[in-house]
Amino acid sequence: MFQIREKDEKTKARTGVLSTAHGEIETPVFLPVATKGTVKTLDFSDLEGLGVQGLIVNAFHLWIKGLDSVQNTGGLHSFMRWDRPIFTDSGGFQIIRKDFDFKITEEGFVLKSPVDGKKITYSPEVCMDVHSALGSDVTFVLDDCPPYRSSMERLRGSVDRTTDWARRCKAMRRGGQEVYAIAQGGTDSELRRRSAVELSEIEFDGYGVGGLSIGEPRDEMISSLEVSVSSLPEKKPKHMMGVGSPAEVLESISNGMDIFDSAFPTRNARHGTFYTGKGKFDIKKSGFAKVKEPLGPGCECFVCRNYSTSYVHHLFKEKEMLAYRLLSIHNLKMVLDLFAGVRMSIKENKFSTFAEEYLSEFTT
Amino acid sequence: MFQIREKDEKTKARTGVLSTAHGEIETPVFLPVATKGTVKTLDFSDLEGLGVQGLIVNAFHLWIKGLDSVQNTGGLHSFMRWDRPIFTDSGGFQIIRKDFDFKITEEGFVLKSPVDGKKITYSPEVCMDVHSALGSDVTFVLDDCPPYRSSMERLRGSVDRTTDWARRCKAMRRGGQEVYAIAQGGTDSELRRRSAVELSEIEFDGYGVGGLSIGEPRDEMISSLEVSVSSLPEKKPKHMMGVGSPAEVLESISNGMDIFDSAFPTRNARHGTFYTGKGKFDIKKSGFAKVKEPLGPGCECFVCRNYSTSYVHHLFKEKEMLAYRLLSIHNLKMVLDLFAGVRMSIKENKFSTFAEEYLSEFTT
Repeated sequence: MFQIREKDEKTKARTGVLSTAHGEIETPVFLPVATKGTVKTLDFSDLEGLGVQGLIVNAFHLWIKGLDSVQNTGGLHSFMRWDRPIFTDSGGFQIIRKDFDFKITEEGFVLKSPVDGKKITYSPEVCMDVHSALGSDVTFVLDDCPPYRSSMERLRGSVDRTTDWARRCKAMRRGGQEVYAIAQGGTDSELRRRSAVELSEIEFDGYGVGGLSIGEPRDEMISSLEVSVSSLPEKKPKHMMGVGSPAEVLESISNGMDIFDSAFPTRNARHGTFYTGKGKFDIKKSGFAKVKEPLGPGCECFVCRNYSTSYVHHLFKEKEMLAYRLLSIHNLKMVLDLFAGVRMSIKENKFSTFAEEYLSEFTT
Repeated sequence: MFQIREKDEKTKARTGVLSTAHGEIETPVFLPVATKGTVKTLDFSDLEGLGVQGLIVNAFHLWIKGLDSVQNTGGLHSFMRWDRPIFTDSGGFQIIRKDFDFKITEEGFVLKSPVDGKKITYSPEVCMDVHSALGSDVTFVLDDCPPYRSSMERLRGSVDRTTDWARRCKAMRRGGQEVYAIAQGGTDSELRRRSAVELSEIEFDGYGVGGLSIGEPRDEMISSLEVSVSSLPEKKPKHMMGVGSPAEVLESISNGMDIFDSAFPTRNARHGTFYTGKGKFDIKKSGFAKVKEPLGPGCECFVCRNYSTSYVHHLFKEKEMLAYRLLSIHNLKMVLDLFAGVRMSIKENKFSTFAEEYLSEFTT
């Protein structure tokens, strides 16, 4: 269930309300990434304090180690102690990129279990069973997301396979769990169009746009996104997979994207990068040792309300784990504030101005 | 300022109230260790939520990296965002045990700066200047704490030096900061007595008992503790340095000790050990994967109120930093609950029974 509320007049940006089994989400929305069942360094009360509307967890990463714990505690919501919406990604993207020694067959991904070394198959059907065991609200089909610069043959195979797998996933759709397809096609506009059209014909609850922001030049990303979005049903929610940096977020929203997830704020935090309205900064820089002021001017996160930049600098230099947590909280707040600003600007029909002003201040 | 309130009739256990520039502390009390300005993995609100009465920070560890940050933000209390009492240990213990390439001279510890490699001296006078810059409520004199099994000559030297340095520290006592001496003497009862008597004659605001629980057999620890305590002024607060395990805590309290600090609950947490009233457990054990119940039966910590043992097990297996934080919170609560039970039992004149029952349930 997705209701579009306001539409920006100059762009395709829009606000909406997504209803799930665990409550409503106002879009455009940012979902922090909780790959293995936790947003790294944070607990549920940190996330509630930040006003996080929903999370995205990786079905594959949990499955590969065994689902006993999650199932035994009654599913992800009680396992993670999170009663708001949970999305579960299929893991197609991660299987190809990370250290899983895999083969792609028409059946699915065949790989070696890191637990006992046995050959196991992660098929669309297994993927849907995992989503079901996890009890998430929104699930993604298993897709085949080839790396940037893959051959045309590889890209074509990926689109065919993604459509086929998506159809098999939809056949297993269960009540209470929405199923989103993921449009692929690399940076080839004809393949982008075909993938989106084929998936639209099968009819899903929502659509992810995948395979972008993985190394391609900015203009290719934008043109590919435009093709995907314009070939997908306008009224359905659209999820931009793995995108979280302000410039890409604003560009995607102006192209009609509604939902985002990315490890951007939290992963960068753990590497010592923090963000303010002015851009990104390295907390390790010695100049921060004497800065009494909080990390972000005007920021109202827990960290900025309580700690000096100097203290966070000290913690990071000493490799104190608290530093990673504090920077994660701050960076998430910064991204969530951006989304709140976006929603407000669309309601006030000022999205373009908002985006321009934001980006003119924000230097990367 | 220390007021003894109730005394146990069968032992030397007692309750009291310690007044400091940042509020009162009910004793016996446990101070979590915030070596470098943070209790590892936790923020001030976690500690407030746990009802922590005070913290102990290591003056030497902060000094060696430069005090600019702390001084610039107005001292430890504002730096750490902690407005309850802070104790600062001198670091004598750590200099000898850790990787500091040091020499002991009558002047103080001579060592190489890890920052620029230059030879620097950490003397009683420098130590007191550091305490002053940090703005803590209770400070410890610089002591010389030789390892267990040191020669009699080394032990004698340590007692002489500790007395001399304590006198030099007291000469620099400033208003608003209490100064506690640290009684040494290894496990030699005559040296234990002499150290305590010499320090008592100089008159300090309180007394630490140091150099115990560093590898010596339990009976030697107890007999040495008894000698130190009986040779120190009864009315002054007494701090058992670096002791936090239930058996040693209860033994020390029954010998009249009032204040404790130890990395025991938090360091063990980071290694996957958690405690309940029944003893210690290893969260990594596969059996915990399916335990829906919280870590501690009846425990009311944030973790036990919200998460299953299964979830914490999962986080620890996945090396998620949240696991270290959750176990630290739980273990601290377990130690703080022990101290709350001790205080109550002394008030009700049932300390011995309480201690016996606690230890009969608690298997290590």
